[in-house]
Amino acid sequence: MKKSATAIISGKASIGSNVSIGDFTIILDNVIIGDNVTIQSHCLIGQPTPLSDGKPLVIGNDSFIRSHSIFYEGSQFGAKLTTGHRVTVREKIEAGDNLQIGTLSDLQGHAKIGNFVRFHSNVHIGQKSIIDDFVFIFPYTVLTNDPHPPSNFLTGVTVNKYAVIASMCCILPGVQIGEKSLVGACSLVKNDVEPETVVAGVPAKFICKASEIKLKDGSNLPAYPWMRHFHRGYPKEVIDEWMANYNIQDYNY
Amino acid sequence: MKKSATAIISGKASIGSNVSIGDFTIILDNVIIGDNVTIQSHCLIGQPTPLSDGKPLVIGNDSFIRSHSIFYEGSQFGAKLTTGHRVTVREKIEAGDNLQIGTLSDLQGHAKIGNFVRFHSNVHIGQKSIIDDFVFIFPYTVLTNDPHPPSNFLTGVTVNKYAVIASMCCILPGVQIGEKSLVGACSLVKNDVEPETVVAGVPAKFICKASEIKLKDGSNLPAYPWMRHFHRGYPKEVIDEWMANYNIQDYNY
Amino acid sequence: MKKSATAIISGKASIGSNVSIGDFTIILDNVIIGDNVTIQSHCLIGQPTPLSDGKPLVIGNDSFIRSHSIFYEGSQFGAKLTTGHRVTVREKIEAGDNLQIGTLSDLQGHAKIGNFVRFHSNVHIGQKSIIDDFVFIFPYTVLTNDPHPPSNFLTGVTVNKYAVIASMCCILPGVQIGEKSLVGACSLVKNDVEPETVVAGVPAKFICKASEIKLKDGSNLPAYPWMRHFHRGYPKEVIDEWMANYNIQDYNY
Repeated sequence: MKKSATAIISGKASIGSNVSIGDFTIILDNVIIGDNVTIQSHCLIGQPTPLSDGKPLVIGNDSFIRSHSIFYEGSQFGAKLTTGHRVTVREKIEAGDNLQIGTLSDLQGHAKIGNFVRFHSNVHIGQKSIIDDFVFIFPYTVLTNDPHPPSNFLTGVTVNKYAVIASMCCILPGVQIGEKSLVGACSLVKNDVEPETVVAGVPAKFICKASEIKLKDGSNLPAYPWMRHFHRGYPKEVIDEWMANYNIQDYNY
Repeated sequence: MKKSATAIISGKASIGSNVSIGDFTIILDNVIIGDNVTIQSHCLIGQPTPLSDGKPLVIGNDSFIRSHSIFYEGSQFGAKLTTGHRVTVREKIEAGDNLQIGTLSDLQGHAKIGNFVRFHSNVHIGQKSIIDDFVFIFPYTVLTNDPHPPSNFLTGVTVNKYAVIASMCCILPGVQIGEKSLVGACSLVKNDVEPETVVAGVPAKFICKASEIKLKDGSNLPAYPWMRHFHRGYPKEVIDEWMANYNIQDYNY
Repeated sequence: MKKSATAIISGKASIGSNVSIGDFTIILDNVIIGDNVTIQSHCLIGQPTPLSDGKPLVIGNDSFIRSHSIFYEGSQFGAKLTTGHRVTVREKIEAGDNLQIGTLSDLQGHAKIGNFVRFHSNVHIGQKSIIDDFVFIFPYTVLTNDPHPPSNFLTGVTVNKYAVIASMCCILPGVQIGEKSLVGACSLVKNDVEPETVVAGVPAKFICKASEIKLKDGSNLPAYPWMRHFHRGYPKEVIDEWMANYNIQDYNY
């Protein structure tokens, strides 16, 4: 472990090999950190809460947590978690591999998150959210959970595989965002979104099929499903699967 | 006082009994902290400003301030203040007891806040806001104050007792949000909201009486006023008063 | 240099005279800080990134950076930069003098910013944004850059001189916001905004000429261009130029 001089690390924490901990970062007791993990400065990792039922915070191998971030005990992340700065992550999240959480994002806990999910800056994930593999959520979007706030009858949002929610959307409780769909920027989504469609507006309405949106790179090729043209940061085996499933030989990356 | 080894605490600060101060937290001179208060790590408490007129920051008894929070001198909070992480609170706020301020919220100062007010995550309270008792404000909502920005003619928003503002709303300067009203998610509120009504939209329009919204727990009982069914975290004397005022024997908590 | 005892400052950083560095702040190697600069506590200054092409972070004279802020290497700021708390500023920003960045704002890098620009709290500036002199952007506004997210074909927003974007707006990629225009609160801007006009709504539409908005101070004078009545914080030579260009003798500051 490469521990900065001022970091404070509990002897009870389990820390893998080749881990780097930044200055002024605190690692508390109930934490399991994998191998090859970097945690930058000014973080608070493993904050206790009675809501964790005593479960540890688990950070998978090859993860990278940027400065000023806060993680509670009781959540579990697979390999290659990457965060921006000052993310806040509460208890009882079960997340797969390759999750990216953008700067300022606020995960309220009690949620399920798949593999290769990407939250950009300042995304708010309410409790009881269910987010499937390869979902993208863009800045300032909020997934809500209370149909008549304040109440105790919470019902989460479900976002299905490959769906994209653009900036500054508010998704109402219980809504299902369909596979490979696109929610346009600044939308209030009150009703379920059909797979492979585009919705937008306040309230959001059907705009067109996702495949009708064209790339603005001069090619006039369809922009959705986005897996045809956007491959940055995915491993070869994922891209190979997309190449087998989609007609992507026309795309020029 | 239970002071972490790395906390930096001014000898001029007045600190009550049974106070706990986290690592890497700074407590500056002009601060009065009551008894049984916890301040977590990485906070900056009592930041000086000429706009405070020399008044101290006062934090009441039994308060809990989570990590990475910033409070300026010159504001006063009653007992049982509770904050999320990384809240920013400026000068000249006068707040009652039992205020909750959610993670990332930004209180710009020069505001009045009653008792039992609850701000969820990432709420922005502009200067000159007046917020009465038992108000709820949900994530990413902004109370503005400048009718023609930028200018020096600020006029605040007033939110009356028991009113609820849902996620991602923008309330324009000088607007009055009526008692026991509900502002639906993603609304732009330009005009006053009548008591016990629901408004929503961009711009917000009258939707129905608040009592017409039904609980989605299968009971079909009215969801508003919310005091009938939502009692979490309130003291017995408050709930007893609600029970005397409302017909709540049908509700099953 | 007035270095707090717990600050960590690289010997490779270039630091001017009369600089003050707060507790628990980290200054890394590739940083050039001018004279008379204050950097408060809990900051991370000069975060390395391969995207900087090795360029340093340059902070001009007479700057003031508030606590919990993060700056990457590879950006350049003129004199009199002022930030709120916990701003996040990435690489390859070229900014002029007198920039103000509000609390929680998130500048994603790869942007050009003029002189006397003011971002209020929680503004998100996407990559490839171009922001000219004297622009105001108010809280929770997002400048986007991806016309069909996710993609690699980013096109930034351009905001021209003296334009004002009010709270909670989302500006779509490639949009030009015209000189001296006003975007009303809670707007989704899909099309270019003509100079000296007001737009608002989701999607934003033409409302009126900017000069038709009247000050709400009882004077009934035009509120725009705002340089007639709003002079707080500008140097005398700037105000003198405005006085020569506009008929402002009727305004009472």
